[in-house]
Order: sequence, then C-alpha cells, then structure tokens
Amino acid sequence: MPRIEKILNYIDGEWKESSAREVVNPATGELLAQTPLSPRKDVDTAAQVAKQALQSWRRTPVQDRVQYLFRLKRLMDENIDEISRTITMECGKTLDEARAEMRRAIENVEVACGTPILSQGWVSEDIASGIDEHMIRQPVGVCAVIVPFNFPGMIPFWYLPYALACGNTCLVKQSEKVPKTMQVVFRLVEQIGLPKGVLNLVNGAKEAVDGILDHPDIRAVSFVGSTPVARYVFSRAAANGKRAQCQGGAKNPVVILPDADMNMATAIIADSAFGCAGQRCLAVSLVITVAEARQTFTDLISEAARNRVVGYGLDEGVQMGPVISAQARDRIEGLVDESIKEGSKAVVDGRAAVINGYEKGSFIRPTVLVDLPPDGKITRTEIFGPVLGMIHVDTLEEALLFVNGGEYGNQASIFTSSGAAARKFRYEANAGNIGINIGVAAPMAFFPFSGWRESFFGDLHGQGKDAVDFFTQKKVVIERWPREWSRKF
Amino acid sequence: MPRIEKILNYIDGEWKESSAREVVNPATGELLAQTPLSPRKDVDTAAQVAKQALQSWRRTPVQDRVQYLFRLKRLMDENIDEISRTITMECGKTLDEARAEMRRAIENVEVACGTPILSQGWVSEDIASGIDEHMIRQPVGVCAVIVPFNFPGMIPFWYLPYALACGNTCLVKQSEKVPKTMQVVFRLVEQIGLPKGVLNLVNGAKEAVDGILDHPDIRAVSFVGSTPVARYVFSRAAANGKRAQCQGGAKNPVVILPDADMNMATAIIADSAFGCAGQRCLAVSLVITVAEARQTFTDLISEAARNRVVGYGLDEGVQMGPVISAQARDRIEGLVDESIKEGSKAVVDGRAAVINGYEKGSFIRPTVLVDLPPDGKITRTEIFGPVLGMIHVDTLEEALLFVNGGEYGNQASIFTSSGAAARKFRYEANAGNIGINIGVAAPMAFFPFSGWRESFFGDLHGQGKDAVDFFTQKKVVIERWPREWSRKF
Amino acid sequence: MPRIEKILNYIDGEWKESSAREVVNPATGELLAQTPLSPRKDVDTAAQVAKQALQSWRRTPVQDRVQYLFRLKRLMDENIDEISRTITMECGKTLDEARAEMRRAIENVEVACGTPILSQGWVSEDIASGIDEHMIRQPVGVCAVIVPFNFPGMIPFWYLPYALACGNTCLVKQSEKVPKTMQVVFRLVEQIGLPKGVLNLVNGAKEAVDGILDHPDIRAVSFVGSTPVARYVFSRAAANGKRAQCQGGAKNPVVILPDADMNMATAIIADSAFGCAGQRCLAVSLVITVAEARQTFTDLISEAARNRVVGYGLDEGVQMGPVISAQARDRIEGLVDESIKEGSKAVVDGRAAVINGYEKGSFIRPTVLVDLPPDGKITRTEIFGPVLGMIHVDTLEEALLFVNGGEYGNQASIFTSSGAAARKFRYEANAGNIGINIGVAAPMAFFPFSGWRESFFGDLHGQGKDAVDFFTQKKVVIERWPREWSRKF
Amino acid sequence: MPRIEKILNYIDGEWKESSAREVVNPATGELLAQTPLSPRKDVDTAAQVAKQALQSWRRTPVQDRVQYLFRLKRLMDENIDEISRTITMECGKTLDEARAEMRRAIENVEVACGTPILSQGWVSEDIASGIDEHMIRQPVGVCAVIVPFNFPGMIPFWYLPYALACGNTCLVKQSEKVPKTMQVVFRLVEQIGLPKGVLNLVNGAKEAVDGILDHPDIRAVSFVGSTPVARYVFSRAAANGKRAQCQGGAKNPVVILPDADMNMATAIIADSAFGCAGQRCLAVSLVITVAEARQTFTDLISEAARNRVVGYGLDEGVQMGPVISAQARDRIEGLVDESIKEGSKAVVDGRAAVINGYEKGSFIRPTVLVDLPPDGKITRTEIFGPVLGMIHVDTLEEALLFVNGGEYGNQASIFTSSGAAARKFRYEANAGNIGINIGVAAPMAFFPFSGWRESFFGDLHGQGKDAVDFFTQKKVVIERWPREWSRKF
Repeated sequence: MPRIEKILNYIDGEWKESSAREVVNPATGELLAQTPLSPRKDVDTAAQVAKQALQSWRRTPVQDRVQYLFRLKRLMDENIDEISRTITMECGKTLDEARAEMRRAIENVEVACGTPILSQGWVSEDIASGIDEHMIRQPVGVCAVIVPFNFPGMIPFWYLPYALACGNTCLVKQSEKVPKTMQVVFRLVEQIGLPKGVLNLVNGAKEAVDGILDHPDIRAVSFVGSTPVARYVFSRAAANGKRAQCQGGAKNPVVILPDADMNMATAIIADSAFGCAGQRCLAVSLVITVAEARQTFTDLISEAARNRVVGYGLDEGVQMGPVISAQARDRIEGLVDESIKEGSKAVVDGRAAVINGYEKGSFIRPTVLVDLPPDGKITRTEIFGPVLGMIHVDTLEEALLFVNGGEYGNQASIFTSSGAAARKFRYEANAGNIGINIGVAAPMAFFPFSGWRESFFGDLHGQGKDAVDFFTQKKVVIERWPREWSRKF
Repeated sequence: MPRIEKILNYIDGEWKESSAREVVNPATGELLAQTPLSPRKDVDTAAQVAKQALQSWRRTPVQDRVQYLFRLKRLMDENIDEISRTITMECGKTLDEARAEMRRAIENVEVACGTPILSQGWVSEDIASGIDEHMIRQPVGVCAVIVPFNFPGMIPFWYLPYALACGNTCLVKQSEKVPKTMQVVFRLVEQIGLPKGVLNLVNGAKEAVDGILDHPDIRAVSFVGSTPVARYVFSRAAANGKRAQCQGGAKNPVVILPDADMNMATAIIADSAFGCAGQRCLAVSLVITVAEARQTFTDLISEAARNRVVGYGLDEGVQMGPVISAQARDRIEGLVDESIKEGSKAVVDGRAAVINGYEKGSFIRPTVLVDLPPDGKITRTEIFGPVLGMIHVDTLEEALLFVNGGEYGNQASIFTSSGAAARKFRYEANAGNIGINIGVAAPMAFFPFSGWRESFFGDLHGQGKDAVDFFTQKKVVIERWPREWSRKF
Repeated sequence: MPRIEKILNYIDGEWKESSAREVVNPATGELLAQTPLSPRKDVDTAAQVAKQALQSWRRTPVQDRVQYLFRLKRLMDENIDEISRTITMECGKTLDEARAEMRRAIENVEVACGTPILSQGWVSEDIASGIDEHMIRQPVGVCAVIVPFNFPGMIPFWYLPYALACGNTCLVKQSEKVPKTMQVVFRLVEQIGLPKGVLNLVNGAKEAVDGILDHPDIRAVSFVGSTPVARYVFSRAAANGKRAQCQGGAKNPVVILPDADMNMATAIIADSAFGCAGQRCLAVSLVITVAEARQTFTDLISEAARNRVVGYGLDEGVQMGPVISAQARDRIEGLVDESIKEGSKAVVDGRAAVINGYEKGSFIRPTVLVDLPPDGKITRTEIFGPVLGMIHVDTLEEALLFVNGGEYGNQASIFTSSGAAARKFRYEANAGNIGINIGVAAPMAFFPFSGWRESFFGDLHGQGKDAVDFFTQKKVVIERWPREWSRKF
Repeated sequence: MPRIEKILNYIDGEWKESSAREVVNPATGELLAQTPLSPRKDVDTAAQVAKQALQSWRRTPVQDRVQYLFRLKRLMDENIDEISRTITMECGKTLDEARAEMRRAIENVEVACGTPILSQGWVSEDIASGIDEHMIRQPVGVCAVIVPFNFPGMIPFWYLPYALACGNTCLVKQSEKVPKTMQVVFRLVEQIGLPKGVLNLVNGAKEAVDGILDHPDIRAVSFVGSTPVARYVFSRAAANGKRAQCQGGAKNPVVILPDADMNMATAIIADSAFGCAGQRCLAVSLVITVAEARQTFTDLISEAARNRVVGYGLDEGVQMGPVISAQARDRIEGLVDESIKEGSKAVVDGRAAVINGYEKGSFIRPTVLVDLPPDGKITRTEIFGPVLGMIHVDTLEEALLFVNGGEYGNQASIFTSSGAAARKFRYEANAGNIGINIGVAAPMAFFPFSGWRESFFGDLHGQGKDAVDFFTQKKVVIERWPREWSRKF
C-alpha cells in the first residue's frame, strides 16, 4: 500500500499543516494524500511573511537573484523523473507527457535567468537642457499564482521564476486536486537557499483563492483555470485594485485542407486531441475538414483513436491515461451524450471504458464525434476530455467563419502545404496561439503564452518578456541637475 | 455676447446632436455651450460604426495609417493657438498652460508616428528543426478613451494616436464640463481624411461611461479621473472581460532638503502647486521640509503664493486662472476649512477671492497651509485646487516614511543638490513618477505616464511603448514546414 | 534649350562653387549641369563646419531635433514631383520609378522621426547595493554619407535622417553623375531651418571620397557603390579608425519552382530585372528555373522583355529608360558579348537599341540570355543593366547550391506556392534580403537594408534601428551613491 | 619543482601539440609551461573544422545550444578556485583579483544563456496587402577571438558564449604569455559535450593572429590588446572584408572634486590604480585633483600606495602581485624615468622593488608621480603598471578639458557628492565607460563593455546585446502570399 502523504504548506521557509481533503490517483483509485484546504488565515500568514521578505529581496541585485534560479534549473533537471512520476500519479497523464511538461517548466526557469537584461529600464538624456529621464523597473510586491490541476508542474513556472527574478516575493496556490507535485518541487526549492518568505506554497480551494483576491498586501494575481473562474478572479482582483492576468478555457479548432499531409496531420492531431486525455487548454477538440479532406481524415483519425493505448501513465507503452477524477469522467460522458442528442454521431466511442487492472480508474477512451451540428451547444462547449468533434465545410473561408464564430480564442490550427492558405489563416483566425501544421501551439518560454477573447483576461501574458512586464512596475524618474550648479567647482 | 455653441458628437464621420447640458466659462461665468449628455444608444451607435470600420482599417498597412497622424500633427501645430484659447475659456487655465498642454498632445502624435517600428513582433527561427515561432501584434478592436476635465486637449492623446496607429478604431468620451476643445480638435480630425467610423467622439457623463463599460464590442478602456471612479471603471471593465488602464487621483509630496537651491525650488514648486490652479494630477500639494529648510522655504513659498497673478487666463500677465466651477471652488474652500479645523494654519489664505472684472468667476487665490497634522484627514486628501500644505520633519528618512505612508502613488519629488539623497529618494519613494529638482514630473510622450498604488489601476500605462502594448494583442504563431516536403521540387 | 545648371556645394548653410564636370541627360544626351569635383579642401571645410556645429546640435533635445525632420517630410511630400522629375532627367529611370524611390526616402525620414524612442539607452538599478548602471547613447560626431548614381534621391536618406536625429552633424557626398537631385532636396533642407553646418553637401568624385576617408574629424562613413569600391572604402576607413558600413554590388538570383504562379512571377521579375534599366542593387539578374518551370517561364519572360516600352522616362507610358551613360551602355553590351562567347544565347537581344527621338540616349532594350554556363565568368558578374540571364536545374536543392555558390549576398528570391519550399529557401539562401514571391526585396525603412557576403562590409546596416545603432556611441555609466551619504539629512 | 606543462591546442575536440615557447610565473620566475607558437596551418585546421561544424551547430535550436552554457556555468562555478590559481600563477594578480575576473567570465556565460530572447528577430505584418516582412538573425559563421595576457580567464568570455549561443563556431587565440588558464577552462569545455569543432583553442603569437586575419572562412574577429595592434587588427580584418570589434589601450583619468568622500575615494582609487598591478584597461592611471582636493588626496593616496602589500598573489594578505614579465617591468620603470625627466616627481617610488622570497619576480611597488606636466608625453602614455600620475587644476571645467584632451576613451571617473557635477561629467567626458564614485567602471555582462576613440575600433562591443548583434547577421525576408491563392480551397 502506498504511503498516504500529508500535504503541507510551505510558508516562511517552513512546512506547515492545515485542514485537509483526500487526493486520489485517477488511474488506480488509490488514496494518495491528504491535501490541506487552507483557510484565509493561512493565506494571510503567507502574504505577511512574503511582505516582510520583500524589502531585502528587492535590494538583492538581480544578477544575484537569478543565481537561485540557476540552481533550481539544475535541481529540476536532475529530479525531472521524480517530479514527472508524481505528476503521472496524481494527474493521470503519461510519464512522457509529464516529462515534456517539466521540460517547459525548466525552460521558463532558464528564460527567467535572463532577467538582468529583460528587466532593464530606459533612459533618455537631455529631454531638456540638463534634464534626463529614466524608466526604472521595480518589483510590484507580493504576487500570487493560482494554478489548475492539469499542469501541476508547469503552470506555476509560467510566472514564479519571473516574479522572483524581478524582486517580488510570491505565493503559489496549488490545485487541491494535484498537490503532490509542488511538494516535490518545493523540496528542491528548499535546497536552493532562498531567503525565508520569498517563495511560499499554499494548498487549498475556493477559500484560499478568495483569501488571495481580497488580501490588501497581494498586488498581482496570475491565474489559470476555466473561463467562468478566470472571469471571476479577474473581476474580483480588479475590484480590489490588483493587476491580474487570467487564462481561461478553450475549444480549439483545427482546419484540415485537402492539400495537407494527411498522415502527419493525423498523428499530430491525435496527439493533440487525446494527449493528456484531452485535458489541455491547447488540445485540439474540433476538427473542421475542408472539401475532399473529409473522408480521408475521418478514416485516419478514427483509426488513430481506436489504436491509442490507454492505461496507467507509468506503464510502458501507454499513450493516454485517465481523466482527473470520476466526476470529470461522468461530466465528459454526459457531454458526449448531449452532443449525440444534438445530432452528432460517435464513430469512435470511448465511453464506459474498462482498463484491465485499473478498474477503479477514471478512464475514457478516445472518442470521435462526427457531423456535429454547427450551431450545437456542445459543439462550442469545452469538454476537457479525449473527445474530438468533427464538422465539415466546403471552403477555407467557411472554415474561418466557423473558427471565428466561437467565444474562445486560445488556439487555432491549420494543416496545409500552401503558404498562402497558412498566411490567410494566421492573419484572420481570432486566437492567441496559432498552429500551422502544429497540433499544440504552446509558445516556447521565450514567447508569451497568449490567449484571446474568452480564453484570456488581461493584457500581459505569462512567460518571457510579458511576464517581466507584468511583474515589474515602471517608475519614471525625471532629474534636473543644472549645469550652473557645478560652476562652484 | 459670445456665441453659445451647440456641442456635437462625431460619429461615423458625421456631426450629430444629442440631449444637452450647459457649459460655463469658469473665469467669466458666461455660458459657453450646450453639451450633449449622450445616452447609451449614442455610445452604441459609435461602437457599431467603429466595429464596422475595423476590418478595413486593420488591413491598412501601418505605414499608411501613420500618414493620418503626420497630417494631424501638422494641423495641430498650425492650430495650437485656437485650441489653446478654447482650453483656457472652458477650463480656466492660462494660455501658456494650455499651449504647454497641447505641445504634449502633439508630442504623443509624433511618437505614435513611430508605430511601424514600435508595433513589430518577434521571430525565432528553428525552435525545433523546421519549426519557427512568431509573435505578431494585431489590433485589439474597438477602444474607448474616457477623459477628465482638467486636460481636455492632452489626455485623449495619451491613448488615441497609438490606438489608431495600431489598427484599432476608437471612440473618445470627452468630459461634459469641457466639451469644446475636442470640437475644435475633431474639426482638424475631419480634415485628415480618416475613413468613416475609425475615430468617433461622444460627449456625455455617467450614462455614456456605463454604456462604454458594458458594451460587448468595446474591447479596451483607457480612463483618467478620480480614484473612486477609476476603481469603478477598472472593476466594471474587468467584470465585462475588457482590458483597462485607469489613472486615478493623487496627493503629491515634495521633500525639500536643506542643501536645495531654495530660489529655484520655490519657483518650480509654486508653478507646480498653483499652475493650472492646482488641478493637475501631478501638482505638488504637500511640501515636506527637512531640518533647516523649513523657515527659508516657508517664507519664500508664501511670498510666491501671495505674488501670483490671478485672473482670466486669456489676459496677459495672468499666472493662474479659476478652478473649473463654482462647486469645485466651494468644495476646495470647504477642505481648507476642515484642514484648519484639524490644526493647520493658513499663512496665505486665498479663499473668498474676488478678481476685478471677473466677479462671476470661480476663483481661489494660492493658499499655503502650514503645520498640517501628519495624521490629519485633509493632510492626505486630494484637494485639486491651488492649496499647498506643508509639514515638517527632521530627517530624510522621516520624510520618506511620510511620503510612503499615503495611499496614492502618482508623483513624489525631492529638491536637493546631493546625488546620494536623490538616489535614495528615487529608489525608495513609492510613486510612479519621480522628480529630482522637478516640480511636475510629467513623462515625455516617449515614456509611459506612470502612476502607482491608488493612483493607477492596470499594468500598462498611456504614452509610448506601453500604449502600443496596450493597444495590440499578441498573436503567437508556430509554423512547421518540414524540409522533406520540398523534396518534390 | 534647357538651362545648364551650375551645381553647388552646400556648406555651413551657404551654397558654394567648386571646379566642375559636365552632367548629361542619359535619355536625351543634353547637357544638364556642371558638377563640381570638389577637392579635399572643400571636404575639409565641410568637416570643419560640421564639427563646429556639433556641440550645440548635440545639446538640442532629441524631440526638438526631429521637428526638423517632420518639416522635411512635409516638404518632400509636397515637392515629390519636382524631385522625381529631376531624378528621371539626370538618372534616366521612369517618373514612376523616381516617385517610388522618393517615397522610400520620405519613409526613412518618417522612421527617423521616431528617434526619441529608438535612441533610448538602458538602465539597471542596484547592480550592487547603491550602485546603478546606465547605457546612454550619444552621437558619434561628424558623419559622412557617400552615395552612388542609381538612387540619387533615396540612398542619402538611408542614413542622414538618423544621423541628424541622433545628434550628429553630417556631410553628404553626392555622386558626380547625378548631382541635381540633391540640389533640389537641399533647397528644401534650407527651408527647414537647421542650424548652419549641421547638414552639408559636397559634390565630387574620388578625391572627395579620399578626403572624407582620411579626415580626422569624420568619425563614421556610410557608403553605397560597387563591391571593389565598397571594400576600398571600408578598409581605408578602418585603417583610419572610423566606423564604416559599406554596401557593395550584387548578382541577385531568383528561383522559379514549377508550382509558382507563372504570370505573376513573370510580371514581377520583369519589373525587377528591367525596372530602373537594371541599375538597382536589388535587381534580379539571374533566373534559375527548376524542372518544368523552364519552358513556360522562358517563353513568358521573353515576351515581357520584348514588349517592355523603352524611352524617355518623362514620356507617358514608358516602362524603362536609358542606362546612366554611353560608357555604361558600352560596358553592358560588352558583357553581353562576352557571355555569348562563353556559351549563352540571347533569346531577346536589346543591344544597339535606337529610340526614336532619343537617338543620343544611352539605351539598351531588355535582354534575355538563356543557357548561361553555370561556371561562366559573366554568369557571376554584376552587369548593372537590363540583362536577365537564365540557367536551369532539376531540383530546388541544386538551385540553392547555385544561389549560394556566388560571392554576393544582397538578395535571393523564390517563386512558389509551397510554404515548405519558401521556408527552406528563406532558411538556407545566403543573402541578406530574401524575397518570397517578391522581385525586389527592398526592406521597408523600419527594417535594416541588409546585405551579406561581398555585398556588404560592416555589421550595422542603413535604415531603422540599425542606423540608430550606427549613429550613436554607447556610453556606459556606473554610479555609486552610498546610502550612508544621505544620513546627514 | 612544479610540473612544466605542455600547452596544447584544442581543435576539433582533440588536444594537439605545436611548436613552443616558455611561460614563466612572473612572481617566482619559475618555468611554468611550453606554449605553442601555432603556425598558420594550425589556425587553418581550426578554421576548417569550425567551418565543418557550422552547419549542424547552426541547425541546433537555440534553446538547446544554451544548455551547453548552463553546464559550463556550473562547471566554472565549481572550478573557480583552480582556474583562479592558474591565473595568479601565470599572470601574477592576486587570488582575489583572479576570482573576481572569473566571476565576470561566468556572468557572461549566464547572460548568454538568455540568447533565446536576445536573438529574436522582428516581424511586421501587412507592409502591403498580403505581404509580411521579417528580420531573422542567423549566425555569422566561423568567429575568432584574440585575447591579451591581462585577463586570460575573462576576456574570451566577453565574446565566445554569445558567439556559440548564436549558432556560430569559434576559435580562441589565447595569449602566448598566459596559456595555462584556457587549458584549465577547456578541460571543462570538454566535459560539456559540445559537438567537435564548435569551439577550438589555438595558442600562439603574431603568426597565428595573421593566420586568423587572412583566413577566408573566418567571418568575424574580436580582439583586445594595445591600441596599435587593435588598429592593425581592425584594418587588416576590414581589408579582408570581415566584421571586427577591437578594444585597444587606455589612459584613464579620474577627477577628484573637493566635496568627495576622500577616504572612500582613496581606497577605491588605490584599488583601481594598483590592483592587478595596474595591468587593467580600466585602471585609473591619471588623477586630476580640483582645487582644495589636491593636498588631502595626495597625502592619502601616497600613504595607501606605500602601505599596499606586494608579493606573490597566492600568499595570504598580498594586495598586489608582479607585472607580467621582466621586460614589462623594465619598460614601466623606463617610462617612470622618462616622466621624471619631463618634470614629474615620484612621491612614492616603487621601482627596483625586491620582494623577499621572490627575488626573481617581476615586481614594481605602487608608484605615485605628482606634478605631471600637462603636455608631457608620458603624461598621456599608457604605462600599464602600478603607476599613478597626478595633475592639478582649479576647476571642474579645466579638469574636463584635460580629460577630453587625450586620445583614449576607455574610462573616465569622478569622485564627488554633487549630483550636478556628476551629471556634467557623465554628459561631457569623452569616454565609453564612466564612473561616478567608481574606480573601475567595468560594465556588467548585461551591458556592453564600451570604449571610445582610440580605445575601441568598431561599432558593436563585447558582452550582452551588443555581442548578440555582432555575432548574428540580419536576414530580411519579405513574403507575398496573395489572398486569392487560397481561393482554391
């Protein structure tokens, strides 16, 4: 029997208990941990110590602050397997998927190591005789990062390495569904020797979130989750005068033109739609075939869906794990039911999946729905499971109309060999992340993780230069030093 | 008798009437105009035409879009006198002050002419073999600018030239107190030949503001006003999923060290405190004298306050005009009363001012209050009139504690000849705009107009690069073009 | 009979004579002007006045310096016709070509108007406790621009607006073959009110160039011309310790894939090869057809070559003018002879052209040579006339080998509809300016005018940000202001 | 007896012998090593292997290339003691000085880890309808770094981490006087697993330098050394068409105003003038006292000079080591003689120094010369030893005239407490690196290592963004993808 871990908060350089709830391995059904549902006072403590740590951390030169990140990168490199296994156990995705997740996390630490240049301000000499003007970037203060269950190891790193490198102190509110990953990561954080209070971990659910949103000492909030919650967080943070960046949900379309390389497209789209059991905000969930692409692609993707090996992510050869929980599975299956009621057909039906040896797991097999009604409610609903819907149109123009008709704007992709079609799509698709022959257009850490319309609230994104902009306040300084004052020398 | 102008909205390239309210010259009391109180439907019409104009405006190359701005700059240069006189008439400030205001407006048009470079995105080749990544900036959509009464000619230009140059369409909601200035400016806008609907003007008050905040087609809101309204606008915009940047109020402190050049400091601070009758969000309103600076500076500034020539801003030699309205005057005088009740003393008392020939004007003369109680309510209240409060401390350290103890963060200044004191102040003062021997630390158009704490809500400011960031959405594009695909050639 | 103009130098705000040589209209053979062959002492005078003007120009705030450019842009806009006609008369190109040239010149003035932002330096606070570091851009000093005959109106503007905006003073050495264009432009320069000595014009030939290269007060040299002269200028400037950027010659290949839109490709390539009578450093002069593209394209381009209307550039409907001089025509015809001796065939032969009414003009009609021997000397020689050579290969890979086998690297283009072929070409072609379905890949003013290998010597190019980098010196400032020093206050 | 090491070249991943010359510990006189005087053919081999390695290195994604640098940083951190001891042994400086040198080397590796962002190009969409323009940075090719004896561990790192990160392959020509340091460093380089040929080491003297300068496959040269050699390298590289950046000599002045903190100034200036035995291109070598600063500062600095502990850099408590060689010592002493002949006086005379136990060492003790004749030849000559000259003036204005009267421009410093004097100095001093209350204004790795006038030839410096600009070629790509082409879908 596996050890039932007691998940702890990490506040002010110490591990602390709080009231708890159960965490279950979604593949095996085993109880993994007791996660704290931190009350407001835990958040308050974390914010207080972070505030106290701010003054001296802010005064630490930036090239010294990034030394902690260089160490963290190395420790994460060295411990990528342990972290990845933890992700698989509590989150369900395969080990390869977990490793890829952690590589992007590490890449963000790497990019944040470049903060000495990224955080430079600007200077103009002589805006008038003897007067110079500077823009200096200073830290925002205490920052909070609120992360969802689906990338427990990566998403905190879209933000926190930049927040720290820019001189802020930080608290991470990890999802109560997947608390173990950050436990492992914070064991590494402990080793890099950060001053107490600079980086803190709080576990919990809504009460902890509200504690953050209402706390007067927390100046900035970074959030990833569903659109309704993202909108709630954005608006409550704003009402409290905070800056916020809130990533929401998605329903990502992909357009298949007849001149696409169909085998490549199939392989890539299968990975996108079914990888991480579809629980990815950049998962392709809606295929739009154009003209004669329809039949070929439907056949190929159906075959790929059927052949995908589903099981426990730690087992060799497994290509897809369970969804996060039994409730999630039931919700997804219910949405498939509804879609069928709306008129779609399941050419591959992954519901009621039973995986030998993992009968308690929350599995759904890959599912392919065709003939989605273009105006169906479920056609536009984020399912967040391994369910790929397909619709068909006659022209690229129609496909774009459909792409731009949804409310989300996280990602849109096209498969084609035509430079002109690619350019038209890139230019016109209303989404923040665009893939050309790409299934998961996840921006590298040196680009912003974009998102438009209902998929993002705010104006500065996570990762790279956007993160540095978000985690610094611009201070403009105008200095007059009259020439005649030095006449006395 | 002056002509009573009927103020019009400018929507879709046409001038349109709406229901109205009276506008009065604050120096003479004369009725100047009838300003519309546009109802929601006017806002809606403007938003609709702006949305229709978006598609083709967005497709106009950026170097062509800035041609309109080059023309506008020239027309504004040529008509600066007429615009400035209008400002003086409806807003009260002197003609020189109005001209300086318009020069900064024009400077913003100039900087926005550089948008072809400022709006460039980024590209990384080979993020993996054969895969490239781009970040392209595209317009946000329809943008709204809501401006206050105190800089009717300048503040729209912190935003709109950038919004237009970046490919957005725009509507400006001018303050109902000072509607005439934009009438003159939009007569120039008419001449530059912008396509219909690209730039629209709406006059009005709260209903128009709410119409903007709730309109589904308006994607971005830029606001300048008082802190409570800024917070309201920010939070309502956020609740509606919009990006917003909201500039609020201020209570700007200045520290006088004993080694300052006292005559220069006096002249500069008098201009800052009493210029524009103190109705400037960067006006110095709180002097903190350190050690032996106290007596000298109190004497000098009192003399400067007494000698300041108050009158109608169009009359030669006048150094200060009226405040915006009789209500404003009464409010300011009331705050002076309260401060005196709290314990301060008026060494120069400008209340109950009568200006010969302008007996109906809303005048207050420069007022200097000493011995402000450090914890007095009015000591920390924005007065927005020609009232300078003074407190005294023994050390720079204490002065900084006081500076950082307020809730606002728009500006903080110091007067000193010491490089070290200047650096300490710049480093530690919690304000977005810092002046070293500067009275009004107004950032040039090629710097952000900053603002911290309760003086600003959001993360990207007006002017320069910040404005370009605010008025563009980042689209990340990842393209795979496999090498083997070109084997066929 | 047209007026024989006496060309003058413009030095220190005055027009000055010097010894002279004749300038002839290459279409009509008429004598146009006497151009000075300025001796070293004229250069010396110009450098001296430029040096004297430097101190106060440098102290003029950048936002004031660009006001001169805003005025210049407007004057150039208003006088574009007169300038363009002058270009046509002395240089031979058509009026439309001359206008397009001037539009790019004006665009560079526009971009340089953005120098207040482009010239900002950087600042890092707290590189150690109490120590800040700045990088400030200051002007380089006196800068010289040496320009060739083929773009007498545009090429000076790749450099001089940036040089001026950055606070340098400048002298332009115009080509002695086409001196009139800058005479017209400097009449406009006179009107913008620049302080004397800030911008100077010297006409002349080699002695003037050497005078520049050896002058101790000239700190930077920008040059465009043939490769041997570019290399000479670069190395002599370097030997004298100057920074230099030297653009040389070219032999620009274009690859035609079979999937290209052949009609579009033909129209575009004809304009590139024969436009400006082929006297353009970005003219396509070598077509490489791949596989079945061969026959179609050969037929189409031959037809286009035959149909091109040749004549005096001021006459309506004329599509191509003469080359610059009788000597140039003879040189070009000689190179065609040689190429034919090497093995090529003239499917369209434009030699010995006679244009009715312009029998004294230096005309060559469009010429198409096929079957160029791949290792022929002329195959790789810059002809700088309306002569298009063609070779044929079987694959894109071979085409790229041929493209990269030459010594120049100014431009390489491809025509295709394949995104993958375009990407491969863009990635692998060894040239600074790449065209995808583009015939003249001339970078916009907000991009560097690139050039690689023997087509460019130096590391910073003309136009945009590169020009600002070239025309500023970086000054790093490290300041220590110990906190304890302000204890005394 | 210490091991006599045989110094090897590192070419194509292997250690190789070449003909040799002796290396001596300048403190002990012991023979340390035999260093190769590599002939041209060794350079040629290195260039060939570097060229072969280029294609696949260039195709390695940038985020993968920087992984080697992350590893190198860690190894350098871990081995800083061994490298530093080696520096002390062959170069003479103290162990603390050697460590500080290596920290800056490591910092450059850290900054180059940020190349994924630093090397991004730019993109503008829609420069015309359907046409986009990109600027992509591609590697320059094979790059060579030629370094001097005084910072054998640091100076290579101003360049090579950036060269590698940008996709170039590289060869380092280490000084034949101090070859051992790079032997140690390259033992670490071996461990990071770079592909063969990507980074190569050649030892040698003038023949090796010429081999580099003339080699057709080497595209870029970075050099640090004396001004005559810098100029030679710059001009020979240019004549061969290469880009080059060449750092030369210096004679760095420091101005002492009477309001300076004299004790701090003395300590800092003593470290600057005598640290590394004055063999630093940023060493202060000329003090200019203003007004009453004269006597105090002369007394204090003389005392500091007398008290400086001179000896073997590895011995505890030693503050200054020997100069690089007996020849160097003789040259320095000769220059002191000459200066005295010109009229100066040695108030502290460090010539003919004998250090107990190190009688064979090349020692000079700190030397202070006063009353330098302002127009003395030696007054302006770079001595490159622990010799501090002093002159006196009456005003800051005069001091600046003297500062700007020299031919070098590497560094200029001032000590003052006046913000105005600091600003005037920063603005007017003609040097690339400015110190305000700073003795060695060595730019952090995230700033360019500047240098002006005869101290630098070129336009892009080492370190940070300049290095990335230098080690990349800008490729502009213009793409047309007509909208109508996608009509077929």
